[in-house]
Parts: sequence; structure tokens; C-alpha cells
Amino acid sequence: MADYTTNLDNQAVPFERSSGMRRVAIIDMGSNSFRLIVMAYVPGKMFKMIDEVREVVRIGEGMAEVNALRPAAIERGVRAAQIYAGFCEASGISDIITVGTSAIRDARNRALFIDRVRREAGLEVRLLSGETEAYYGYLAAVNSTTLNNGYVFDLGGGSIQITRVENRRRVEMISLPLGAVRLKEGFLHSDPARSKEVSALGEHLRAEFAAIDWFRAEPGMMLVGEGGTLRLIGRLIQKERHYPLDILHGFAMQRTDIGATRDLLADLSVADRKKLPGMKPDRADISLGGATAVYEALSVAGFDAMTICGQGLREGLFYERFLAPDAAAPSDDQPPLFAAVRQASAYNLAQLYHYQEAHAQHIAHLPLSMFDQLPPDERICGPSERELLWAASILHDIGTSIDYHDHHKHGAYLILNAGLPGYTHREIALIALLVRYHRKGKPTADELAPLLAADDDRRLLQMAALLRLAEQLDRSRDGVVSQVVLTFTADHALLEIRSRGDEQVPLWAVENHLDIFSAAFGKPLVVVPVPDEPDEVTLI
Amino acid sequence: MADYTTNLDNQAVPFERSSGMRRVAIIDMGSNSFRLIVMAYVPGKMFKMIDEVREVVRIGEGMAEVNALRPAAIERGVRAAQIYAGFCEASGISDIITVGTSAIRDARNRALFIDRVRREAGLEVRLLSGETEAYYGYLAAVNSTTLNNGYVFDLGGGSIQITRVENRRRVEMISLPLGAVRLKEGFLHSDPARSKEVSALGEHLRAEFAAIDWFRAEPGMMLVGEGGTLRLIGRLIQKERHYPLDILHGFAMQRTDIGATRDLLADLSVADRKKLPGMKPDRADISLGGATAVYEALSVAGFDAMTICGQGLREGLFYERFLAPDAAAPSDDQPPLFAAVRQASAYNLAQLYHYQEAHAQHIAHLPLSMFDQLPPDERICGPSERELLWAASILHDIGTSIDYHDHHKHGAYLILNAGLPGYTHREIALIALLVRYHRKGKPTADELAPLLAADDDRRLLQMAALLRLAEQLDRSRDGVVSQVVLTFTADHALLEIRSRGDEQVPLWAVENHLDIFSAAFGKPLVVVPVPDEPDEVTLI
Repeated sequence: MADYTTNLDNQAVPFERSSGMRRVAIIDMGSNSFRLIVMAYVPGKMFKMIDEVREVVRIGEGMAEVNALRPAAIERGVRAAQIYAGFCEASGISDIITVGTSAIRDARNRALFIDRVRREAGLEVRLLSGETEAYYGYLAAVNSTTLNNGYVFDLGGGSIQITRVENRRRVEMISLPLGAVRLKEGFLHSDPARSKEVSALGEHLRAEFAAIDWFRAEPGMMLVGEGGTLRLIGRLIQKERHYPLDILHGFAMQRTDIGATRDLLADLSVADRKKLPGMKPDRADISLGGATAVYEALSVAGFDAMTICGQGLREGLFYERFLAPDAAAPSDDQPPLFAAVRQASAYNLAQLYHYQEAHAQHIAHLPLSMFDQLPPDERICGPSERELLWAASILHDIGTSIDYHDHHKHGAYLILNAGLPGYTHREIALIALLVRYHRKGKPTADELAPLLAADDDRRLLQMAALLRLAEQLDRSRDGVVSQVVLTFTADHALLEIRSRGDEQVPLWAVENHLDIFSAAFGKPLVVVPVPDEPDEVTLI
Repeated sequence: MADYTTNLDNQAVPFERSSGMRRVAIIDMGSNSFRLIVMAYVPGKMFKMIDEVREVVRIGEGMAEVNALRPAAIERGVRAAQIYAGFCEASGISDIITVGTSAIRDARNRALFIDRVRREAGLEVRLLSGETEAYYGYLAAVNSTTLNNGYVFDLGGGSIQITRVENRRRVEMISLPLGAVRLKEGFLHSDPARSKEVSALGEHLRAEFAAIDWFRAEPGMMLVGEGGTLRLIGRLIQKERHYPLDILHGFAMQRTDIGATRDLLADLSVADRKKLPGMKPDRADISLGGATAVYEALSVAGFDAMTICGQGLREGLFYERFLAPDAAAPSDDQPPLFAAVRQASAYNLAQLYHYQEAHAQHIAHLPLSMFDQLPPDERICGPSERELLWAASILHDIGTSIDYHDHHKHGAYLILNAGLPGYTHREIALIALLVRYHRKGKPTADELAPLLAADDDRRLLQMAALLRLAEQLDRSRDGVVSQVVLTFTADHALLEIRSRGDEQVPLWAVENHLDIFSAAFGKPLVVVPVPDEPDEVTLI
């Protein structure tokens, strides 16, 4: 029989073979569940979650009455800590960040728990204040969404953190003991809940949120929501509406949908809630309190929608380690932020699938150059679509990591499943469709159509035409075409290509792909080579 | 502007970074189309197609009358050769294998063409005899299917090769000038074809096949088909029947379906054939001749079905390079064959997605050990399903190369899209479903159900139960559980686990996954740890 002792070399995922790869385990002892994630990363370059363990510990169960961790909860918590520590040891992970939040923080007997975890599991729990907890939730939001001005609303099991963000910096924060577990224990004692209980809860929440005078919608602001119960509400809405994407991060929940979900949950017993498509059984009981909190927050602050951030405390802790490895505490002066979330996210995905950097950059250069040369009356895409064309160019070949055949389809699958933090779902759909149609086929949105805006089918066609021409001009992936000049006349378009070498491959390759250009721009395209050097023919 | 000169380092796909990686371009100058494929490989270890170019050259067009390549066809052929040579040069590929087949081989002016390709494109064409062409088609078939005894039927544009295989060796072969292009030019002059033309063609083919006295079905024999037009017929049948898999390799075409397709094509004009779902427009005209040839071959030889091999000449040439890098010519004594196609295919896929070898092997060890300990009256799976359980164990985590979240779904996607040569479509579906349900969920075949046999849902459930237990027993991927002993009593099952170290993680992990076992075997499972060392407690 083979020897199955731990062999880290064999356990490497591809990019973990990169030089400088590190692994960190982050253990988050929340009021409802304890979670462990393992991230593999090259500091500042790329990262990937490679493992996750979740255990519903309910460390805060029964705390509402006595403000102390109950003995049975402590036993469950210590046991989970031992399991997680054993998991890290067995996996050979020595860098472990362990944090405790609301329930543990607020318990009178917290020192006893922390001491037992230290002695019996060998883990050092960093107990986070509400402010620090909010800081990491904020870091996750600004590093994975385009939140510049607005709020982060983090709904935990024990507490709610609200952070006000201006120019990507946090300027206000508050932590309220209004987490989903506590709301249920404090207000919702019947099953199904009585309407009196539900309205008392609503009133309480409205008063609490109204008292925060800086928590109000202003023009240009975005409201970002975090937390497991909040994601659950998003999932229920997606299932109800047969939403075409299986991604929660970036999903914009409408207030009306949240209200309808709250009403639905209020009518159902916990047992019946468990039958709802998308419901997580272990959150069925606390889902009503959570939905009510979210709905009232939007109502009081005056937002029509909330964008879900699928990340939170754990990812915030990770971003600090990733972007500022030496930081040991929150920094409001210089928080560790990606310079540009959307670019970072596209590059991260591209690197995870080992994109061919030179070809991808060249491919990005060619269609953007054509894009910029389009006469204003010929193009219907704006600067924001230009950025999608860039992202699609960078990502167009990642599907080859699955299989060369149909790599356009595989690439779209990867983008739709891995997601692209920082892009809206409409944008992710358009990027995926551009990748889907970068080689052949007539671009159609099909099941993604509900995500698109009016005229996006025409925008898609124009961008797909430029990307496909670029792909063919660099068919041999050697960047032979150095420059393109695109001009329009009344009845046709002309593309002059300058090559650094033999232009026969690009000319041959582009020949079969001119149709999509005339379909997109209503004019036939003529492609002609021009010399790379200045024209030396003297006219006499 | 960045410098876009060729940078091969940046062009590497992941496994190309492995030591010893090589690339070879194979150019196949067929009668209908010229094709270029680029394979990346580590000799004898793993391989992957990384590029493909196809150009419909029709070098054999108009040959039926004069038995010589026509000037226009020669020009098209030389130009395609130049493009392919330019492509290889730009891509930095110096190892190029160029072969010519039927049309060129049979043309009186073939030397002229070969000479022009040498001078104008710098490519050395290796002209294959019909026998050698058949040899490489045979190599592709025996290295990508479970063909032990039977025939390879290779339908090209210019010729048909039939090879008889006994114990994986070829024992007879014949090459007939009955390729799809020639059949069309020789018999099918009207559009739509007249029924007189179709029956004359059928009669001619029947007579030709009947004259091959060794081409008859015998018990235990398999008929494998190759060639682009043959794949097209398979695709038409799959579309017509809304087949749930998008894989042609391994598809078993029924003779009745082939006959129905032949009849359908015979009724339609070429223009109308192009509207059929799955039709390749540039093969619409030659599809009827091809379908007739396939149908008559099955009828004459007495086969009910033909299994499609999606590979052919090009892959055969590649297998020679891959398995016997020093071979320069066909070898009937020691043909380069995988020892076991199914194992090679599972390992190749696993390595392409950087599987964690130690964990995968350990995971394979555990469920197979449990499988072997099942009392005969408790299990409904046989030895062939045991092999599927092995393959699923090896492949269960490959989806993590896409994303940790939902990696069970991604793994199933990879298997269903990349395929697993050597396994039937039913087997591929079962392996994918085992991977799909190796972590959670109730195994259901859903849209793959049409591929499964009676009782496969119960087989799936039993195998999934064993795989899931194994996955949890090695949750920390360190092989801590060294041995499992499974016994059944009248009312329950007992799993004793021996551990090499701390057993708390496996015991904790397996705790939440006992349901699937009782669902599969109708008895609750009790898991108990037993000491790794012999029991030293003395009984007094």
C-alpha cells in the first residue's frame, strides 16, 4: 500500500506552484456559525480560496437573557475550534488568523471561552470590537465592488455594522446588537410569527436606524450588503424570479422584492420556510428577523436597492494580509485597497487560468484601438462598454484551460461561474458573451437576456465584431500586426494593418470573419496591408 | 506602446510549464480539408491539443474525371500550406509532421504539388499509402476506445479504410477509393439527388463491401467509425434526438438512425440540408454519399451500431510520437498502445487539472476498499461499476481548478465537456454524476437520465455514498485514515476506521454524511475508531 503521509507538493493547485505562494487560514467565530477558509496567494499578485469549512455552532444561543455564553454553546465552540485546529495541522497550514465577533465579544464570560480555546485547541482568538469588525467588512466591500460613496450594511448573527464610505474611505460606523439570531430571540417567539411580533420588530428597527442621522441615501450613493442571512435573502429572491445567474455577489436586490420576501417568511412556519427553493435549513428560523432588518434599513435610509457583497469579515482580513502583509491593525489613513477593483478582478481571473499575457494584451490593444477610431455616429457603445471590451480581451482565451475545442464556451462558463467582483451582473453577462462569441457564431444573449439593457444586443454585436477581428489578426499569437487604422466612408469601412513581419497569416485568418463587421456596422469592411515603414515610393 | 514580440514563456498553458514539455504540429492534407493541430505533451505522461486550424481546400475537387489535381485546387493547396507554415513559424513550433492522403496519393501530378509545397512553403510532405493511412486511423481508435476485436471504418474525403482488429492488433486492412467527395462526384450529380442515383450508389457500395470477405460481424466485435463526414452524421442524429451530451467520441450510432438520416438527406437539396440542426455547411453536399457508405457498411457487415471515434489520422500520428518518440514508421509487431486506455484517459484528465495525487489516490483506496467489503446481497454494482468508482475518485476534485465553491459541479462540467476516451457515454455520465454528488446533495441523473441503464440510479446512489464517506474521512487531505473495515448486521452497518494520527477531524467530518449511506443500503451506519496498533489491552 502506498504511503499516504502528508505531501504538500502533491497537494498544490496549479498557481500554488508559482514562486512565493503562501497559504493562510482564517477562522471566523461568528454568533451563528464558525467558518474556516483557506486562501492561497502570492502577495499583491493573485489569490484563490482553496478550502472552506462551516459549522453551525450558535455560540450565541440563549445569550439574549443572560448575556453570557451558555455551557452547551461553549462546549460546541471549543469542539469546533479543536476540529479547525486539527484541520490546519493536518493540512500543514501554520499561518492561522482566528477572530471572535459579536456574541463572544458581548458575553460576560468571554475570557473563559477564549482561555479554553487557547488551552484545548491551541488557537489564539483575536477578539474584534464592533468597530474593527466593521472595518474588515468595509475592506471586503471596497475591494470587491465599485463602492465609492455610500454604505456597507453588514448583517451578522449577533450584530449589524453600518459603515459610511466617502471616496472609498470609511468616515462613520456604528455597531448595533441587532443581528439575525438576536432579533429572533428578542422578538419572534411564535411559529409562525404573530403579526404583532413582526410589527413590533419593524418598529424597533425603524427607530434604531432612524437614530443614525448620517445613514441616509444621497445622490450617487450605493448601498452594499454583507452577511450570510442577507445572502440567503438574495438567494430566495433569485430563485423566486428564476434569475439566470448563479452568483450572489453583485446582485442588486430591489426593496420591493425584499419586502415581498419578508412578507412571505412572516406567513410561514419555520418548517414551511425550509421548503422554499434556495432556503438554507439552518437559517430558516432567523431569516425573518434578517429580512425585516434589511427591509427597514432600506426604507429608513431611502434606498431602492441593495447590492450584495458575497464577501465579508474573512475576506477583509485576507485583503489586509494580501495587500499590506505587515499591517497588524485597522488603518483608516491608508487602508489596503486595490487601485482599481475591476482591473484587479479581471487580471486575477486571467492569471488563475494562466492566460497568455502577451497575446491577451495585444488582443486588448487591437480592438480598443479600433473602438477609439470609430466615428461617433457609427458607434453606440460608451466608455463603460469600452472597459468591458478590455476585460473580454484579457479573458478571451481562458477557456483553453479546460479544452481547446469549444474554448469560447468554456471561457464564458468560467466567467459566469467564478464571477468578476467589481462588475455588475449585466457587465459580467456582456463580458461572458463577448468571450462566448470571440471566435464564431452570431452573438445572442439567450438565457442571459433578462440581465441586459435595451440596445445591449447591438452593443454586443459591435464589440464582438471588433474582438473577433482582433483575434483573427493575431491568429498566430505573435503580435505580428502592430497597428490598425480604421476609417469609414459613405459605403464601406477600411482597415489598414501594419505588420511587423509576414502578414499572410493575419490576412488569411481575417478573411472569413468580415461578415460580423458588416452586420454590426452596416458597411462592408475591406482589410488592406500597409508597410510598417514609412512609404518610400516617391510620387513624380 | 508595449513590445509585442513573440514571448514563448508567456504563451505557455499551465501544464506546458512542466519539465520536458514539447509541442508538435501535425498537418493533414486531406481530400476535402487541410487541418493543422498543435499538441503539447510530455512524452508518455500527458498531452493536450492546444490549437487547431481547418481550411476547406478540396484538393481532390474535379479529380474523378481526370485523376489529376486541378490547377485551381493546387493553388488553394499551396496557399494553405504557406499559411500553415507561417502559422508554425510565428508560433515558434519547429517540429512539424505533414502528411498527404488519398487525393494527393492518387493524383498523377502529385509530384508537382509536393515539390511546390516544399519550395513555396518549406514543408516536407510525407505521402501516406492507403495502408499507412489506415494504420494511423487504427492507432487512434485502439488508443481512445476499448476496441479489442472488430473493425475501424475510416471515411475520408477521397477513400475509405477498413481495418480488422484482433486483440488490439490489426490483422487485415483495405483502402477503397470510396471517400465522400468521390462518391458525390461519381454518383450524385442532381440536386436534390434522384432516387435512381441514390440506389445506384447503394448498390455499388454493397458490392464493394460484400467483396471484402473478412469484413463481417462476429460475436464480441465492435465497429468503430472515424472521419469528419461520419462525425457529421453522428451530430445530425444527436441533434434530431436531443441527445443530452455534446460529445461525439464514444457515441454509439444505431443503424436504424443512420438509415433514417440517409433517407432524410436524400430528400433534401444541398441548400435545404444546410438548414438541418448540426449540419456543417461545407459538408452538406458530400453528406449524402457519406451517410450511404456508412449505412451500407453496417448492413453488409451485419452490425447494429457503430461507435464514433472522434480521433483519426492526426491523433494516430500523435500517439506514435507520444508513446514511441523514436518510431518513424508503422509497426504491426509492436504498435504504440496505451496499456489501458481507460486508466490513461482518467489520469490524463486528472493531470491536466493538476489533481492532488496523494489525496486522489487515497480517496480511491478508501471507497474501493469499502466496495470490496460489501456483502454480495447488499450491493448491486459489478466490477465495471467498480472501475467507474475508481475514475470518479481520481477525478473528484478537478473542479477546484475552476473555483472552490461548487467544485463538484465544475468537476462534472469538465468531465462532460472534455470527455473521457475509452468510457461509454453511460459511463461518462455516471462518473460525472459521482463527482457532482461527492460532497452533498441527493444524487439524481436529471438531464443525463436518457444515457443511463435500468437501476443505474440505485447504483449511482451506492457508489456516491461510498465516495462521499471517503471524501469526508480524508477531509483534511492528509490520508490520516489508513484502513476501513465495513461489516453488516441484520439491522445496521459498522465502519471501523484505523487512523495514523488524530482521528477527530475524520470522525467529525463524516458525522454529517451518514444519511446517504442509509439511503443507499437501507441500514444506518455507525462509524467507530479502532487503534492503529494491535489491541494491547489484556483480557483477564
